[in-house]
Amino acid sequence: MSLSSGPAGGPVLMVGSVAYDSVRTPFGEAREVLGGAASYASVAASFFSPVRLVGVVGEDFTYDHVAQLAHRDIDLAGLRRAPGKTFRWEGYYEDDLNHAHTVSTELNVFQDFLPDLPENYRDTPYVFLANIDPGLQLAVLDQVRRPKLVACDTMNFWIEGAREKLVAVLARCDIALMNDAEVRQLSGQVNLVAAGRRILDLGPGVVIIKKGEHGCLMMSRDSYFAAPGYPLEEVRDPTGAGDTFAGGLVGYLARCGESTGEALRRAIVAGSVMASFTVEDFSLRRLFRLTPEEIAERYHEIVAMTRFGSL
Amino acid sequence: MSLSSGPAGGPVLMVGSVAYDSVRTPFGEAREVLGGAASYASVAASFFSPVRLVGVVGEDFTYDHVAQLAHRDIDLAGLRRAPGKTFRWEGYYEDDLNHAHTVSTELNVFQDFLPDLPENYRDTPYVFLANIDPGLQLAVLDQVRRPKLVACDTMNFWIEGAREKLVAVLARCDIALMNDAEVRQLSGQVNLVAAGRRILDLGPGVVIIKKGEHGCLMMSRDSYFAAPGYPLEEVRDPTGAGDTFAGGLVGYLARCGESTGEALRRAIVAGSVMASFTVEDFSLRRLFRLTPEEIAERYHEIVAMTRFGSL
Repeated sequence: MSLSSGPAGGPVLMVGSVAYDSVRTPFGEAREVLGGAASYASVAASFFSPVRLVGVVGEDFTYDHVAQLAHRDIDLAGLRRAPGKTFRWEGYYEDDLNHAHTVSTELNVFQDFLPDLPENYRDTPYVFLANIDPGLQLAVLDQVRRPKLVACDTMNFWIEGAREKLVAVLARCDIALMNDAEVRQLSGQVNLVAAGRRILDLGPGVVIIKKGEHGCLMMSRDSYFAAPGYPLEEVRDPTGAGDTFAGGLVGYLARCGESTGEALRRAIVAGSVMASFTVEDFSLRRLFRLTPEEIAERYHEIVAMTRFGSL
Repeated sequence: MSLSSGPAGGPVLMVGSVAYDSVRTPFGEAREVLGGAASYASVAASFFSPVRLVGVVGEDFTYDHVAQLAHRDIDLAGLRRAPGKTFRWEGYYEDDLNHAHTVSTELNVFQDFLPDLPENYRDTPYVFLANIDPGLQLAVLDQVRRPKLVACDTMNFWIEGAREKLVAVLARCDIALMNDAEVRQLSGQVNLVAAGRRILDLGPGVVIIKKGEHGCLMMSRDSYFAAPGYPLEEVRDPTGAGDTFAGGLVGYLARCGESTGEALRRAIVAGSVMASFTVEDFSLRRLFRLTPEEIAERYHEIVAMTRFGSL
């Protein structure tokens, strides 16, 4: 499927945080740069499908950042501007880029965020609930009408503090995206496959376990799919990799107009490709200068590095 | 290629430890059971190719264990019986099965082991130097004549204590097998791809980075190949997984009579398949009751779980 052909399945609704991040890694630093799960997911998805972004920013959110998102043809009618400051996250990574150390989290305008979907958003066929309070994820699910596909992400904070609501979200999702530590934490199982099985028992037809540089493992009730991480010799900033993966995946599914079997596998690889670009630079810088040709080339490289013949 | 067809490339020489292990995991315990890198590697390889085992055991090594190895058609002319006790390792695993905790290591007869290859072993075309003192690995390389392929393994202990000799071994190897932590330790690089690149700079044409449940990454100067771990819902004892992987890999290459490109990829998957069986039970129990049909079936499952189409 050509990246430049028209959409088959319709737009994607992205709900989550839009943030200003301050990040330090062994390879550099960036302060007060565009971040947030919904930003990464929306921009990644926009390479495959129209995107409708639902979130909130403060009065300090710059026109430049609005313009950057708009340039990706992201519909910002659902991005509310509220009195106060934009959500902020500050953190750093040491040598182990799989582990983010949080210095501070300022919820700011996100504190009182209640998603209120514009009327024309309520029939969006593809929905991605990025990592936010499961209560808000449920509020979105109560507003959308018969979506074709719902995918969700979460984090350790909600597994600890809002488990019941999170379980209620998972029961209404088709695809659960979680990293390996989260899958183990939520399930109470150490073995990753057993842990994934428990997540499937909560409702979603598919769980996709994100393993950072090790790629991901997709599990459904009757199949597995394993995709490697793209081998990068330089990772500058892993922030947003998981959100980018999810956005690319859901965007690709929306583009295909189907979400099972072979299309889901291609979507997972497309998501991996997008994430591998995100980590090459701070913030969304690499995504903003990415081309469809680069996506296609890297996708093909992953094809080449996973092929092998019969025994 | 049928597992039951005749060998194309000739036998494999396996050099390393034959041991009695005492192992405890969250899923059980086994005391004084057959172990050692050369045991696992030899039995794994024996499913694909004739094997010649070079090692040493003590007077306490039982006829039963000799018979079990002999039943796999492993040539034991190079397995010396020395006065004293067999090498012993005692260890345990907690929930993180990727990390072995050593309780005790008794070198016993291994203390004075000097590999002395039987004359007819010196022309063995395929050589696997399991994880032993790099000085002994060099001694073996000095005795073999123009092997078609040499692969080696090592461990953190030798990287710390015998780095120069290890580097000399690597310079004479075609394939270096190491786990991710070892690759990072030897190279001084945190990024795994950059780390692997440094290992290639030391001489081997191929480095295969073992990542436990995450599978492995093969790097050569101009290509990558990533293979997933086989998803197992129950891992009883990870001891010997890496040795089994290596043995299966080299055995398969010997069977093919070639060791590059596509054959190497299939060999890596064959090695993964063998390792996935080893961890299903303690010691070599699962390997001793394994059938070629089970190998073929699991190989096919990995084919199925890695296939995906064009973008």
